[in-house]
Amino acid sequence: MVCVNLKERSYQIIVGKNILSSLGRRCGALKLGSDVFCVTNAFIRSRYGKIIDDSLARQGIGCRFFIVPDGERSKSFAQCKRLLGALAGFDSGRRVFIAAVGGGVIGDLAGFCAAVYKRGIPCVQVPTTLLAQVDSAIGGKTAIDLPEGKNLVGAFYQPRLVVSDISLLATLDRRQFASGMAEALKYGIISDPRLFSLIEDKAGFLGPDDAGTLRVIVEACSRIKAKIVERDERDENGARMILNFGHTIGHAVEAAQGYGGYTHGEAIALGMLCACDISRKLRMLDEKSACRIERVITGLGLPSKISGVNPAAIAGPYSRDKKFKGQSRLVLLAGIGIPRIVEGVPFALVKEVVRKRIA
Amino acid sequence: MVCVNLKERSYQIIVGKNILSSLGRRCGALKLGSDVFCVTNAFIRSRYGKIIDDSLARQGIGCRFFIVPDGERSKSFAQCKRLLGALAGFDSGRRVFIAAVGGGVIGDLAGFCAAVYKRGIPCVQVPTTLLAQVDSAIGGKTAIDLPEGKNLVGAFYQPRLVVSDISLLATLDRRQFASGMAEALKYGIISDPRLFSLIEDKAGFLGPDDAGTLRVIVEACSRIKAKIVERDERDENGARMILNFGHTIGHAVEAAQGYGGYTHGEAIALGMLCACDISRKLRMLDEKSACRIERVITGLGLPSKISGVNPAAIAGPYSRDKKFKGQSRLVLLAGIGIPRIVEGVPFALVKEVVRKRIA
Repeated sequence: MVCVNLKERSYQIIVGKNILSSLGRRCGALKLGSDVFCVTNAFIRSRYGKIIDDSLARQGIGCRFFIVPDGERSKSFAQCKRLLGALAGFDSGRRVFIAAVGGGVIGDLAGFCAAVYKRGIPCVQVPTTLLAQVDSAIGGKTAIDLPEGKNLVGAFYQPRLVVSDISLLATLDRRQFASGMAEALKYGIISDPRLFSLIEDKAGFLGPDDAGTLRVIVEACSRIKAKIVERDERDENGARMILNFGHTIGHAVEAAQGYGGYTHGEAIALGMLCACDISRKLRMLDEKSACRIERVITGLGLPSKISGVNPAAIAGPYSRDKKFKGQSRLVLLAGIGIPRIVEGVPFALVKEVVRKRIA
Repeated sequence: MVCVNLKERSYQIIVGKNILSSLGRRCGALKLGSDVFCVTNAFIRSRYGKIIDDSLARQGIGCRFFIVPDGERSKSFAQCKRLLGALAGFDSGRRVFIAAVGGGVIGDLAGFCAAVYKRGIPCVQVPTTLLAQVDSAIGGKTAIDLPEGKNLVGAFYQPRLVVSDISLLATLDRRQFASGMAEALKYGIISDPRLFSLIEDKAGFLGPDDAGTLRVIVEACSRIKAKIVERDERDENGARMILNFGHTIGHAVEAAQGYGGYTHGEAIALGMLCACDISRKLRMLDEKSACRIERVITGLGLPSKISGVNPAAIAGPYSRDKKFKGQSRLVLLAGIGIPRIVEGVPFALVKEVVRKRIA
């Protein structure tokens, strides 16, 4: 169990095996409401719907499922409006709250809807992918996309509880799993050499059903993210910026391919490798650490070469990244566990490094 | 000048004559950004657009106008999406903020969009109706409507500045003006006998061009609302509830007629009269005070009889009011300046009082 300490917005992250059936009891203990609007996808509904419903019913909490289609496209105004209309229809005037049971898309969409429905109702995050468990379900960043850009509309809105059931990861396919591991590895690289070593040791063998190791990894990542969010809840003072390690160039790779080819984690892996390359060129990072990082990334089944993307196409979105604000500010590395925010990285250097990574 | 003290979310309300031309200087002093997205209606744009644009240009602030159609229908998902898309198109990566120049609908819509665009950008409220200047532009309640109900989607999001230019009221028609006066009168009734007496003295003569008196009234109402918001920013502890005086039954009257016939202020005037009638029946309020209130309301050109509404139609929405939570909790009166929150008011009494007010 990890605590996120944010005064009256504090909450717990529960990490464990087969804990989905405790959802009702935990929501009941927090007195979140008498009805829950459970936002999820068709697969989770069919596989875990009864466990969720029974768990809530034992506490006298009424449950209505709302199914969101898979994929980033669901982080849209249209889905947001559909969800809020259905929620208003379900809301009988008793106290209603939202449970987001799914990956990052569902967490973002449902979290945002919880933030704005009646100016804020309680939200419980039940992340079901590794990526969501180690990262997106924690910290209160919620958003939907506009045609003009990703995550342009959103809110800082902390959940009241996060329940990360490791057992739910067992059904992840290899690629989804590797994508989550990329984000977990990021936490090791930016802040926890022991976590990095653990992933390094297991990289080739770790699978989605290795619950013991995954529990350690998810809990470690949750703890790191909680500490960073506590220092910088609203992304204001720079503490949260180190979470962008690998993300500036990673987002550019994602955007350049139209968000079709690489998963988020794969793009972030490529972004981390480029950030390491730049750190090497700037003589900040030793060769051994850079090699270790690359070896773990390939060991996890993540790409180390950018393919199917035009380098010119990367430069465009990269320079428009909203983290950028006209300056080439990047999170680089001075060693494993030692991130550095560096201002004024020459754009030519970024381009050179990206070009060398192209297959 | 009135201060709303909310720690890091504190802001000033500037009340004065011909102060629209100071907008740029004030935004510049607060360093709100280098570009402003100015949400307004066609009339204001044509009449005051140049003053606004020049004022901002003198501070080097770029300005783009965005026109919203008049009426409650503009507090919709469709307008919200249209606004945010246009804003994203305008946002060049320099720091952008929003100015809401209009009445309650524009303030609510633009304020909500400011709350959610990039998880919050600065918002300046420039209320141009009396209703907005005395009430809706202050306090950070923003919202849009769903087909299922008014104000169901929104945020608590404080503006960074409120500029209430009394001179803008001169173009209000008689009915809009009276509607604003109903809300101003509410502040006198619930918390300021001197304000009540001032309005009582002027009721028959006061017009939208009486800038001297209006300045006193707007500043007094702003001060009262600021104090209440400071005590209960997020509508959590009941302090803000007294602002609902006249609103529970008033909303029911509005809903029963499909929001077509009465203005908000007219409906609130009827709601206040019903609340006084109930307070009389419960022997809380003396006859003289009740008579004074009714005389001021009719003197302001506001209705004292409900017409064109089926009494049964009032009961329905009244019992569904979201302030209600299944209980008949009403803000009643023990005297001018002495509001009382009363639980368990018999529904039969409410119906009896409403029926007697029907023309």
